[in-house]
Formats: sequence, structure tokens, C-alpha cells
Amino acid sequence: MKDTNALLKTVKETFERENFMGTPEELYAPIDYTLRLGGKRIRPVLLLAANQMFGGNEAEAMNGAIGIEVFHNFTLLHDDLMDKSPIRRGQPTVYRKWNENAAILSGDTMFAMAWKFFLRQPHPRQHEILNFFCRTAMEVCEGQQLDMNYETRSDVSIDDYMEMIRLKTAVLLAGALKLGALYAGAPEKDMEHLYQLGIHLGLAFQLQDDLLDAYGDVKVFGKQTGSDICDNKKTYLVLLAMQQGNTTQRETLLHLFSTTPADPTEKIAQVLAIYQALDIRSQVSQAIEHEFSLAQQELAAIAAPDEQKAPLQQLMQTLLGREI
Amino acid sequence: MKDTNALLKTVKETFERENFMGTPEELYAPIDYTLRLGGKRIRPVLLLAANQMFGGNEAEAMNGAIGIEVFHNFTLLHDDLMDKSPIRRGQPTVYRKWNENAAILSGDTMFAMAWKFFLRQPHPRQHEILNFFCRTAMEVCEGQQLDMNYETRSDVSIDDYMEMIRLKTAVLLAGALKLGALYAGAPEKDMEHLYQLGIHLGLAFQLQDDLLDAYGDVKVFGKQTGSDICDNKKTYLVLLAMQQGNTTQRETLLHLFSTTPADPTEKIAQVLAIYQALDIRSQVSQAIEHEFSLAQQELAAIAAPDEQKAPLQQLMQTLLGREI
Repeated sequence: MKDTNALLKTVKETFERENFMGTPEELYAPIDYTLRLGGKRIRPVLLLAANQMFGGNEAEAMNGAIGIEVFHNFTLLHDDLMDKSPIRRGQPTVYRKWNENAAILSGDTMFAMAWKFFLRQPHPRQHEILNFFCRTAMEVCEGQQLDMNYETRSDVSIDDYMEMIRLKTAVLLAGALKLGALYAGAPEKDMEHLYQLGIHLGLAFQLQDDLLDAYGDVKVFGKQTGSDICDNKKTYLVLLAMQQGNTTQRETLLHLFSTTPADPTEKIAQVLAIYQALDIRSQVSQAIEHEFSLAQQELAAIAAPDEQKAPLQQLMQTLLGREI
Repeated sequence: MKDTNALLKTVKETFERENFMGTPEELYAPIDYTLRLGGKRIRPVLLLAANQMFGGNEAEAMNGAIGIEVFHNFTLLHDDLMDKSPIRRGQPTVYRKWNENAAILSGDTMFAMAWKFFLRQPHPRQHEILNFFCRTAMEVCEGQQLDMNYETRSDVSIDDYMEMIRLKTAVLLAGALKLGALYAGAPEKDMEHLYQLGIHLGLAFQLQDDLLDAYGDVKVFGKQTGSDICDNKKTYLVLLAMQQGNTTQRETLLHLFSTTPADPTEKIAQVLAIYQALDIRSQVSQAIEHEFSLAQQELAAIAAPDEQKAPLQQLMQTLLGREI
């Protein structure tokens, strides 16, 4: 059994060995650039962790692990263009370093490349693997569309938001786990537990991201505290506050989230004051705890020895910043 | 055996029956819109014609036929955005009817949807079918990249151009034919003949498109005569003229292809005069004839009875406007 660090090392070495270039160079350079920027490689590690839990062949599963990471990076590349984000992982995004058309076309090619990795070796369960990857890919697009829809809607409910982050974030983490199990030929029931584990983990992960944006230590988290508030982003926190606040608090939030002052200090302070009054922070912590414990229950329900579950258990802790 | 019209009818009826909608509606409406605008459905008809030539099952091959048409329309959707083309098939393009982000994300979803159709039913040769589709999809992206590269390059050779149209146009026509044969379980040798047939047909088709733009009857062709000249597009005609012209002619062309006068009448006349002096029209006609005869040779080399080749033969004639 490899622990999380060993799995991550294997994934990183594989990415270093892999060739993502091709001709014309203008098409493949942005792909190579994107894939070599790094990132946490969470999805391939999840896939391999699930695979080894059921005694799968690592080399076979690695095709899917690279494929899902290439797909994930393709979605980031197009999302950065759609969101006009200038920076990703401390470096200029593709549409800024090259141009918008390069981002569109290299992204499309990356999506095809993801399939190429999934197709590198035939597999007894290939039809199921590919169909499941295809469905997951479409769901991720649906999540991004909901995210864009919600930017201009003022009536987004907590349920709407949870459905959006389920599709945009959680299904790909869950998908990575289920794919790892598929490659290993795991029983249907255990695959379903792994999938649900991934959904709860993904939801917890996204809610924690929302929470840390408002309350995280900038040194640990790496982002400016309150950046979601600055950007008027509809996170779980503000949606909860909108739901629970009185008329004055709701109207204040509605007003504040329609402004973009040059110095956001006062705006952030006012929003945080409303969060404080409504006890938002501890409610979100409880929601994260709830999703995390549901994920733990799914892990417990899987029919595999505890030592084979240990790396995934470790990874779940790490993902939620709970280093043991 | 179905003739070309019967195959086209089957394809059209299938597209009418098929459901391309889903939720969120904002994501799927542009896909449904694009796929219902029509078009000549050349690729699915080619696929089915190749399939029935080898006695394949039409219902099985139809999954690939829809898949390749969905893929083709996805490339048009993204190309129209990259080229900022306002109109396609007489209707506003997706990025104009909706917006740029809708075009990006609905396009991505359409690419995934193409795979979904290829994956609808398992097939004994599925691994080969999907790998080949994947390679073809990447080549089409490479062709589009070359096309974009050439817009800003002044040293594009005839060979460069042929390689660009091979990738951008011909490999998908050739791919449709080979996929049809793969679905039918045709022998390797015949598939290769079909593929080469498709390459030559695709090259002839694109060269004829270039020729008709300069010399076609606007009533038959539907496009304004000389639109490529207006748009300073590097077609086979101007590249040939650049290659064969004397210094004065080359410099005149270089100058004319850097201007965009409000009234292009004089510009078009000057370009056509140079084409006339260099006998470009008949040279291009000969090049088309050459590619078409190579395509015919490949058809002749296929080990199938003539009556099973008849629909494809008919289709080749129709595509090059040579109705019998």
C-alpha cells in the first residue's frame, strides 16, 4: 500500500515523464504550460487511492488518473477565460499569456487529449469507464453553467448553491474515486459508497473554501481574506446570511454585494459584522462537519480492510486541512 | 442498398427524433439550436454509405453518424466564435445570439455529447473506433490552429495550405468513411482505401470551394463572388498566384490583400485580372480534377461489388456539384 505522499510522488513523476507537446507548437504549448504548472493533483491521487483499495493495477489506473487531471485542467483553462481570471497558480492564465482563441482551441484539444489517455489501453470495463467519464464531464459543464447563471440571479437559494457546487466540484472528486474503483473491478455497492463519499467530501471541501475566504489565515490560505466579498461572489456564507437575516440585514447585504469600492476594507467589515450577528461562521463549520461525517460513514461502509482504506482516510483529512 | 437521398432522409429523420436538450436550459439551448439549423449532413451520410458498402448494421453505425455530426457542429460553433463570424446557415451564430461564454461552454458540452453518441452502444471494435475518432478530433483542432497561424504569416506555401486543409477539412470526411467501415467490420485494406478516398475528396471539395468563391454563380453558390478576396483570405488561388507571379504581380497581390476598401469592386477586379494573366482558374480546376481522380482510384481499389459502391460514387459526384 502506498500512502498519500507516495501516491502523489508517483503521479508527479508520471506527469514529468509524460509528453504533452505536438505540432503545431502554437496549439500544444498552452497545454504543456497548463499541465506543468502543477497544482495539487488531488483527482489523480484520489483515483489511485481508490484503485489500490481494491487491489487494482496502478499502471492501468494511471491512464485514467492522467486523463482526469488533463480534463480538470482543461475546465480550469476555459473557466479562466470565461471568468476573465488573469492568474492561476501564481502564473498568467493561458488567455492572458497567449490570447482568447489560443485558450479556446488549446482547451478543446486538451479535452480530446483527456480521452486519449483514457483510451491508451483497452480495459475489460472500458465501456463503463468511458460512459461514466462522459457523464461526469457533462455534469461539470452543467455546474459551470449554473455558476454563471447565479452570477446574475438575486434569488439563489442554499439548495441551488449546493446543487451547483455538487456539479461543478463534487462530481469530479467523486468521479475520480469511482473511476479508480472501476479500473480495479470493485463491486458495484462499494463503488457507490466511494462515489457518495466523494460527493460529501467535495461539498465539504467547497464549503471550507468559502469559509476560509472569509476567515482564513492569508499566510496559510494564500488568498486575500474577503476576496469573495470583494468580488460580490455568492458563496454559501452570504446565501445563508440572506436566508436568515432580517429585512435590514438582507437589504444591507444586497446593497453591499452590488458595490465594488476601491478600498474594500469597510465593505468587508460590514459584511463580516452581519455574519457575526447571524452566527454564520459556526453554522458553516457545522455544515462542513456534517458533510465530512457523511463522507466518513460512506468510507466505513466499504467492504475493504481498514489498512487498505488508510491512504484515502489520510487524504480526506489532508484535503480539509486536518493534518494528523 | 439505400441511395444518397434515402441515406440523407434517414439521417434527417434521426436528427429530428433525437433529443439534444437537458438542464440547465441555458447550456443545452445553444446545442439544440445549432444541431437543428440543418446543414448538408455530409459526414453522417458518408459514414452510413461506407457502412452499408460492407453490409454493416445501420442502427449501430447511426450512433457514430450522429456523433461525428455533433462533433462537426461543435467545431463550427467554436470556429465561428474564434473567427467572429456573425452568420451560419442564414442564422445568427451562437456567440451572437447568446454570448461568448455560452459559445465556449455549450461547445465544450457538445464535444462531450459527441462522445456520448459514440458510447451509446458497445461495439466489438469500439476501442479502435474511439481511438480513431479521438485522433481525428485532435487533427481537426490542429488544422484550425494552422489556419489561424496562416492568417498572420506572409510565407504560406501551397504545401502548407494543402496540409492545413487536409487537417481542417479532409480528415473528418475521411474519418467519417473509415468509421462507417469500422462499424461494419470491413477489412483493414479497404478501410485504408476509404480513408485515402476521403482525403482526396476533402481536398477536392475545399479547392472547389476556393474556386467557386472567385468564379461561382452567386445564385447557385449562395455566397457573394469574391468574398475570400474581400476578406484577404489566403486561398489556394492567391497562394498559387503568389508562387507563379512575377515581382510586380506578387507585390500587387501583397498590397491588395492588406487593404479592405469600402467598395471592393476594383480590388476584386484587379485580383481576378492577375489570376487571369496567370491562368489560375484552369490550374485550380486541374488540381481538383486530379484529387477527384485519385479519389475515384481509391474507390475502384475497394473489394466490394460496384452496386454497393454506387451510393458513395453518387455522393462524390454530388459533393463536387457534378449531378448526374
